[in-house]
Order: sequence, then structure tokens, then C-alpha cells
Amino acid sequence: MDLSTYFPVWKALTLEQQELLTRSAVNRTAPKGTIVHRGSADCVGLLLIRSGQLRVFYTSEDGREVTLYRLFEHDVCLFSASCTMRSIQFDTTVEAEKDTDFWVIPPAVFKQLMEQSLPVANYVNELLASHFSDAMWLIEQIMWKSFDKRLASFLLEESALEESLVLKITHEKIANHMGSAREVVTRMLRYFQSENLVKLSRGSIEIVDEKRLRALQ
Amino acid sequence: MDLSTYFPVWKALTLEQQELLTRSAVNRTAPKGTIVHRGSADCVGLLLIRSGQLRVFYTSEDGREVTLYRLFEHDVCLFSASCTMRSIQFDTTVEAEKDTDFWVIPPAVFKQLMEQSLPVANYVNELLASHFSDAMWLIEQIMWKSFDKRLASFLLEESALEESLVLKITHEKIANHMGSAREVVTRMLRYFQSENLVKLSRGSIEIVDEKRLRALQ
Repeated sequence: MDLSTYFPVWKALTLEQQELLTRSAVNRTAPKGTIVHRGSADCVGLLLIRSGQLRVFYTSEDGREVTLYRLFEHDVCLFSASCTMRSIQFDTTVEAEKDTDFWVIPPAVFKQLMEQSLPVANYVNELLASHFSDAMWLIEQIMWKSFDKRLASFLLEESALEESLVLKITHEKIANHMGSAREVVTRMLRYFQSENLVKLSRGSIEIVDEKRLRALQ
Repeated sequence: MDLSTYFPVWKALTLEQQELLTRSAVNRTAPKGTIVHRGSADCVGLLLIRSGQLRVFYTSEDGREVTLYRLFEHDVCLFSASCTMRSIQFDTTVEAEKDTDFWVIPPAVFKQLMEQSLPVANYVNELLASHFSDAMWLIEQIMWKSFDKRLASFLLEESALEESLVLKITHEKIANHMGSAREVVTRMLRYFQSENLVKLSRGSIEIVDEKRLRALQ
């Protein structure tokens, strides 16, 4: 059992706490496309990612969405256990963007550890502060950066994540990532194509001039 | 000394920790308009508000700003001690919007308490989560709510805070609150005036039809 290498402050736990985790953690695999956690309807627990990729996105009451951040190997998904913190007053959804393998720490166990262990409480503090910084970055982007720059950044980030200049992603999906509408994305992509930055074809977008796309950001 | 009534988890502290706070806390008064804390250049400490009103706003690298939240009596200002949390990677400024009286807990003392006291660490967790919720609300507003609705909400909120239908505030200041430009605010206020929702005069805005302004939100 490799739980100890994925739980962030394992060595700072007491033997009893380590045993509690070992007893209660469950290994799970979510195929690409699975919704792992859905807003306040769910409280899956704390997720410790062994491999794969999760997308955490904010969902508005009327169903719109915007990507907050991605999680990778050795990251911890906190908002899937948001029911344990009463001051988290917003809904996030967690989706597997690749086949993902993770440990699940049940909410009650996580809550107990937070209440008992100073290292766990302080780890959660730093994690919250770090995601808070992501949210502030997002606020800066959507308030003061024009949509062409944001779209250029998004395409380059996707390209880095997929390690490919050809992105298999729909305009609808991009709109959901960026909190925008499909038509707005399509219009800007067509403009990018007319400027020879990308080449569009059915179901994919090819970055043809990475350098200029990078300069556009 | 009334520090014990303003420090949120006072009763959960040890006698030593209470004495440390009593020894190190400093009482301060900031007249209206004072910048109490300025981004990463400062690290004033944790502020416990005895009376008055503070505005906490995010500042971008190029000097733009947007209001995150206000703090009132018995609230705690955390980001003025953000140097104690390494994962807070953004700058906030704190301004006294009214004459404000508060206790200052020096950063080193606050850090020591966070590292020693589980109740303090968990209190900070809830505070961070609560401000995170404020930030997500702001994201929702700026992404998906049109500017007229946001401005209507802002005017009504100001009116409630000031307990007056006549707001003594410049268009520039409103723009800074909302992360917008002065011209955009002026244009929308003139439209509101043409719709008989507000009446503009030099240095003030009078809400003349609160009911319709409320319906517009």
C-alpha cells in the first residue's frame, strides 16, 4: 500500500492516525470523462491522485462552468471534501480528463484528522491559500485580459498538457473551460485561422504558428 | 483590555498563548482614507477590528483594482498578514473606508499561534474558505452578469452600508471597486439617469427609484 507516499503530511501523523487512514482509504479508478464529484450534491472525500488528470471547475446555479485548476499525480483534491468545511459556499465539479487512479479518504475521516492534527490543518491552510491564488489569477484574467489573449494562453496550455500541437477538443469544451459561449470561441478561432495562427478541422485545432500565438498572450 | 472579545478563538488558547497575545497586540486607529496594508510590500499583521470599516481589494501588477470584500466590527483581516502563508501568491491592499480602530497582532506572533494552536489553524481555514467563497461570487458576477446588473447591485450595497439614498462617491471610485474603467461607469450611470433610476450631481449619486433598481439586479 503506497498511501504513505501520497498523503502529504504522512510522517507528521501519529501511528493511530496513519492506521486510521490505512483502514479507511479506498483505491478508485475513474475512466476519462467520469464526473468524480458533483457540487454540493456529493461529498466524495479527499482525493490523493496516483496517476491521471482531474479538472476542477466552478459551476454557476444556471449550469455555466469555468475551469479553476487541474490536478495531477501527487496532487490532493480538497473540494471533493468541501462538505467538511462549512465556509465553502460554492459548488465545484471534478472531472477525470484522463484515466485517473486515486485514493479516496472518506469525509468523516478527513474531518477527524483536521480536528486532531495540526500538520493536517496547516497543510489544508496552504492548499486553500494556493487555490485562492489560482482564483485570483482567474479574476485578473477575466477582468483585465482580452479574450484573444486568454484563448491563446488556453490553447498553449492545452498543447503543453497534451504534448501535441494538434488539440482534439470541441469549441463547446473550450467555452466551458473559459466560462464563455461556444459562438464567441468559434468566432475567435476563425479569426486566429485567418491570421494563420491555427488550422481548424472537424473536431481538432492545430497550432501552426506557436511563436506568434505565444507573443499574442 | 478587550482583546479577548475580538480574538476569535480566545477561549481555546492556552494561558501562555493568551499572555503572548496580550503582550504583543497593539491598538491602532486609522482615519478614513488611510492605506493600512499595501500588497507584498507590507506585512502589518493580523487585524482585529474594534470599530469602523475596512475595504480589502486585489491589485493587479499594472495597478488596477477590484474590491474583494469589506470588514466590520469583530471581523478579522487575514491578508494583512499574508506574508505568514507562503501559498498566498497575490497582492491585496487594505484601506480604511471609515475611521477604523483595531488591534494588530504582529505577523511573527500570528505565525507562531498558527503553528502551535489547532483551534487557530482551523479558524484560519474557515476564514480562508469564507473569503474564497467571496472570490468565487466575484468570478460569477464578472463572468456571467452584465455590467448594468452589477452596477445596480453595487449602488444598492453602498446605499445599505451608508444608510442613505444619496451616495457621496466619485465615478472613479466606483470603477475601482468594480475593476472597471471610469468612462464605463459614467456611461452606465447616465443611462440609469435617463431611465429615472438615479439622479447625478457633482460628487454624488441619488437613488430615486430603489424598487426598479432592485428589480434590475
